[in-house]
Parts: sequence; C-alpha cells; structure tokens
Amino acid sequence: MSSELAEIRDSLRAFAAERDWEQFHSPKNLASALTVEAAELLEQFQWLTEEQSRTLADEVRARVAEGIADVLLYLVRVADHSMSI
Amino acid sequence: MSSELAEIRDSLRAFAAERDWEQFHSPKNLASALTVEAAELLEQFQWLTEEQSRTLADEVRARVAEGIADVLLYLVRVADHSMSI
Amino acid sequence: MSSELAEIRDSLRAFAAERDWEQFHSPKNLASALTVEAAELLEQFQWLTEEQSRTLADEVRARVAEGIADVLLYLVRVADHSMSI
Amino acid sequence: MSSELAEIRDSLRAFAAERDWEQFHSPKNLASALTVEAAELLEQFQWLTEEQSRTLADEVRARVAEGIADVLLYLVRVADHSMSI
Repeated sequence: MSSELAEIRDSLRAFAAERDWEQFHSPKNLASALTVEAAELLEQFQWLTEEQSRTLADEVRARVAEGIADVLLYLVRVADHSMSI
Repeated sequence: MSSELAEIRDSLRAFAAERDWEQFHSPKNLASALTVEAAELLEQFQWLTEEQSRTLADEVRARVAEGIADVLLYLVRVADHSMSI
Repeated sequence: MSSELAEIRDSLRAFAAERDWEQFHSPKNLASALTVEAAELLEQFQWLTEEQSRTLADEVRARVAEGIADVLLYLVRVADHSMSI
Repeated sequence: MSSELAEIRDSLRAFAAERDWEQFHSPKNLASALTVEAAELLEQFQWLTEEQSRTLADEVRARVAEGIADVLLYLVRVADHSMSI
C-alpha cells in the first residue's frame, strides 16, 4: 500500500474513532456511502454533453474535485474494513 | 500524487489508448462507470446484516477486493480526465 | 399501462416540453438521473440499522416519500423515452 | 394507488412471503437493491452516445425493459415497506 493511502487510512481511522463512528462503519454501510458519493459526483455531469464534461468551468471542476475526494475517502474506509489493508 | 497512483494512471492511459477507448472516456461516461462499479460492490453486501459484512467468507472477500479495485481504477480515470492529475 | 402512470407520463412530457428540456432528456441522461435519485433515497437509510429503517420518524418518512416520488418520475421518463410506453 | 401498482405490490408481498424473504426486506436493504438495479440499467447506456441511447437496438431495448421492470419492482417494495402504501 502506498504511504499516501496509508496516511489517509490512518487519518480516517482517527477521525471515526474520535466521533465514535466505528459502530456505524460496517463494510455494508460504507459501501452504501461510497455509492451515494459516486452518484453525487455523477450528478455534476449528468445534464452536460460529453464534450462539455471534458471542459469544465472552474466552479464545476472544484465540485468535481470534492466529489472525487469523498469517493476516495469512503473507498479507503471500505478497503480498511473489509480487506485489512 | 503518490507514485503508486501515478503508475495506475499511466497504465490505464496506455490501456485505453491501445484499445482506442479515449473517445468513450469522457468524464461524464467515466463517472457513470464509477457509479455502476460502486453499486456492484454494494451488491455484495446488500442482503447481509451489518455484522455479516464485518466477517466475510473468503469467496465474498475476493469479490469485494475485485470490486474495490474496479472502483479505484475508474476513480483514477475520472480524476485523470477532469482534474489533470 | 395504468391510467395513473399514463397521466404521470403525460404531465412529465408537458413539463419537459414547456422548459425545452427534451434536448437533455436522452435515455442515457435520464438513466443517470434515475440512479442519482435512487442513491439519494438510499442516503436516507444508510446510517440507520435495518430495524430503525423499519420504523421511520415522520420527518424521515416525508423525505423518503419525496425520494420515492423522484425515482418514479425519472423511471416513467426513462420508460417513455426508451420503450415507447 | 392505482390498481395495477396495487397488484404488483400484492404479488411481490406473496413472492417474498413464500420465500421467507421478509426478514431481508428492510427498507434499508430494499433501497440498496433499488440503487443497484438503477445502476444496472444505467450500465446499458453508459458507453453509448446520447444519440445512440435514443435509438436502441432491439436486443439492448429488451435488456432496458428488464432493467426498468426490476427498478419498478424494488421501488414498489420500498414504498410498501416504508410508506404503508
């Protein structure tokens, strides 16, 4: 595992532990949250043409970047809880 | 960007270029594929209890690992095409 | 087709036509919107236990009802545009 | 509620009861299955252009019809279990 992903994993573990969220973070729930975040990312693109999606306005690009980050965070959590990464 | 993610990105670029897939890989289409893969991962868990999802059988765990990999690949592609990572 | 679903279909046709939305309402885009709405519905349940999801508070139940309606509307639109219902 | 949707609801109730599936059919699980089915429908369209999605080949149209039916069935189940329709 890359050291960057391991750092994200460790930060997310600490973040969840501080909030007593481990009880909610079953792989089942995390896979659900991952899908919801992926759909929110898709929502940014859905009424654009493919061509428009290739040349995003800065404001949309910022929301897309946030969406990508959210998906990555839940993906690391799912992997951490179901794969022992 | 971590060197491991950069390697994944470069491999995926080469893979898509060899197959002439760039024409299909608009951010819009990739975000759609990402959501579909996330939902396929979710499908592994949906009829399990939360407790069962915390202790997967080896066979399910293997499919979950594949699902996580598929989501990661499309996530890197979306980022590569919309964020200039 | 039931007369109620036909009425929904006709209302949605008129609604889209008035706003000049037909250009955006390809089956591809509508299937994307359908998935996004389904994920928003799922979001209402994702941190609840299964038991909690069987006994919703009124406020949550109201949001769930809205989510179900949104999914139905896009489902009718997808069917109208790809199946000639 | 339309009589057709009520018939679907009643058939699905009987189908689930015969298989002792009620234990799995919490609104949370059904909303997850709904999202997975919506994503499977989206998968039929994701590499098509919008224009191609407006003029489906018969084989694709048949799979789209199945996908629409699957989404409708889970939508009725979600509504039946969380709304008392």
